[in-house]
Amino acid sequence: MLEKILNQKLEEIKPLDVESMRQAEERWKTVAKPLHSLGKLEEAVIRMAGIREDADFIMKKKGLVIFCADNGVVAEGVTQTGQEVTAIVADNFTKGATSVCIMAEKAGVDVLPVDIGMAVDVASLTDPSKKISYGTENMAHGPAMTREQAIRAILTGIEIAGERKAEGYDLLATGEMGIGNTTTSSAVASVLLGKRAEEVTGRGAGLSSEGLQRKIRVIRQALEKNRPDPGDVLDVVAKVGGYDIAGMCGLFLGGAIYRIPVLIDGFISSVAALCAVRLAPLAGKYLFASHCSKEPGGKRVLDALGMSAMIVCDLSLGEGSGAVAAVPLLEMGLDVYRKMSTFEEIQVEQYQELK
Amino acid sequence: MLEKILNQKLEEIKPLDVESMRQAEERWKTVAKPLHSLGKLEEAVIRMAGIREDADFIMKKKGLVIFCADNGVVAEGVTQTGQEVTAIVADNFTKGATSVCIMAEKAGVDVLPVDIGMAVDVASLTDPSKKISYGTENMAHGPAMTREQAIRAILTGIEIAGERKAEGYDLLATGEMGIGNTTTSSAVASVLLGKRAEEVTGRGAGLSSEGLQRKIRVIRQALEKNRPDPGDVLDVVAKVGGYDIAGMCGLFLGGAIYRIPVLIDGFISSVAALCAVRLAPLAGKYLFASHCSKEPGGKRVLDALGMSAMIVCDLSLGEGSGAVAAVPLLEMGLDVYRKMSTFEEIQVEQYQELK
Repeated sequence: MLEKILNQKLEEIKPLDVESMRQAEERWKTVAKPLHSLGKLEEAVIRMAGIREDADFIMKKKGLVIFCADNGVVAEGVTQTGQEVTAIVADNFTKGATSVCIMAEKAGVDVLPVDIGMAVDVASLTDPSKKISYGTENMAHGPAMTREQAIRAILTGIEIAGERKAEGYDLLATGEMGIGNTTTSSAVASVLLGKRAEEVTGRGAGLSSEGLQRKIRVIRQALEKNRPDPGDVLDVVAKVGGYDIAGMCGLFLGGAIYRIPVLIDGFISSVAALCAVRLAPLAGKYLFASHCSKEPGGKRVLDALGMSAMIVCDLSLGEGSGAVAAVPLLEMGLDVYRKMSTFEEIQVEQYQELK
Repeated sequence: MLEKILNQKLEEIKPLDVESMRQAEERWKTVAKPLHSLGKLEEAVIRMAGIREDADFIMKKKGLVIFCADNGVVAEGVTQTGQEVTAIVADNFTKGATSVCIMAEKAGVDVLPVDIGMAVDVASLTDPSKKISYGTENMAHGPAMTREQAIRAILTGIEIAGERKAEGYDLLATGEMGIGNTTTSSAVASVLLGKRAEEVTGRGAGLSSEGLQRKIRVIRQALEKNRPDPGDVLDVVAKVGGYDIAGMCGLFLGGAIYRIPVLIDGFISSVAALCAVRLAPLAGKYLFASHCSKEPGGKRVLDALGMSAMIVCDLSLGEGSGAVAAVPLLEMGLDVYRKMSTFEEIQVEQYQELK
């Protein structure tokens, strides 16, 4: 029943608007600068025109949706810090007191944390209508969640995109907070990419080499125990994913349904993007890569998405920091697109397209 | 005589301040986020502390110095547009009417164009005390400039850094405008890196494949005609460089003398940075890579500098656009460094450094 609702939602996703993209491409050719010289920023503006169905779109209201959730697998000792940190940091999002809040202020991005599955309630944040559960089960011993819970988390992400659209957001960025979520992300990436756990598993927020080996063993154990079906994304997310991954997957799908561009953050977020694109290939056109994480799976997942990062600063902070860092770049590209003189205006002959 | 003045200037360059860098490293460890999780942005803040001799430095006043110059080699048909475009765009810098002006406005960076060697005077811009000559000679037939002119251009760049320091600039970015300057940059890179012309030569602002072959032939001809000495940077810059390259080289050296961090832009700027570092190896610590240009020589020169880009957006606009694009990233890093709570403040146990 829930799955039918999800499938109906996915059918609402339409291709980008070709005419708006054509107009945007034409506009770029008249802007007084060498052709294609803003590279990925030009491509981003063209796709955003196609998403917004308007070559004259603006990007004023920007929001970072941070999905906060806990992961039962933390009991296996795969992290350096305890699960209580999730709630502390999540509470700090509401006070503007985390790293990404400081970056978001600089970038003019609203920070919008969501408790989609934290182990405890946080008064400043928790909305029962958005919370699927109090953390996942320990995937090393059984499924992290039920298929129904996975679908509900994805539908919640879609719903949040719709709410933000109604509030007038022009751009969404994705972030997450959840101790243990590089472990779940590596597990999901391993299944969806058909790679061994060690090829897509890294040190997360700071594991020792011994800790890394334990993390890889736990992921292998979870995959052997649960045997997720690589052809069934919902099965993979339910068995070895997390509520944050499912929520972000939903936000990406919601971006495509409600026609809002959505920025991918780092490894965890790109795994969620891969889930979204496997569920609905058309959704990929609504997504934008921001940075490439230091996590070894980061580049692999972006490659699988056919995307490349704009920023390579070796960030591994999470919280949506890489996505927020990309916002000023996109804005600079859009400003040139919207405000720059044309060749005609500055009386210089237009550059010729290469043969 | 002039060369002696330059050498005296270069002796003023001192190493980074170790104590300020140590304090900055300590501060980063207490900031409530995973260790090293802001990657290159943390490293940049630490080095800037060493440059400024102050772990509590601010980055308020930011300027983009754009060196405008013409290149005699344009007569060989190595570009898609004519030399007159240099003056038109340079004039537009003073009116805030170019792509980089729009980006700089977004990034809060002052645009400071300099006519260091344009073929014509531009009333809004030209200051005779900063102008070395009316364009270079055609390097395909002889030296682009005299050794004295090269040194004067470098000293002018150093002087400009000193003037900006006196005005209170905390950060400088480099840019250039000069039709034909990817040709001169490829020639200089070819000599300094010991690479064949075709390994470091690209399409610039939009050459056809035929145009690219002609450009490579012209560079080969200039190198054969002038035989610059790879061990003598001044000889290389004088014979196959340009006033913009020499001026930026001086600005980089001036950054090191007057202790202001300076951002490298793309290919042309990184070639100038390589010249600066070959003249004074200590200067390298005062420089920051921003983006990696699409030009094939871009990555090679950054590698030779031992630097890696923060941005990979396939930019090839010039004007300092990549350097300006990196400013918000650096500012976000610095904001986290200066404003973020410590572990103690948020009552979370500090992360442990990996063994």
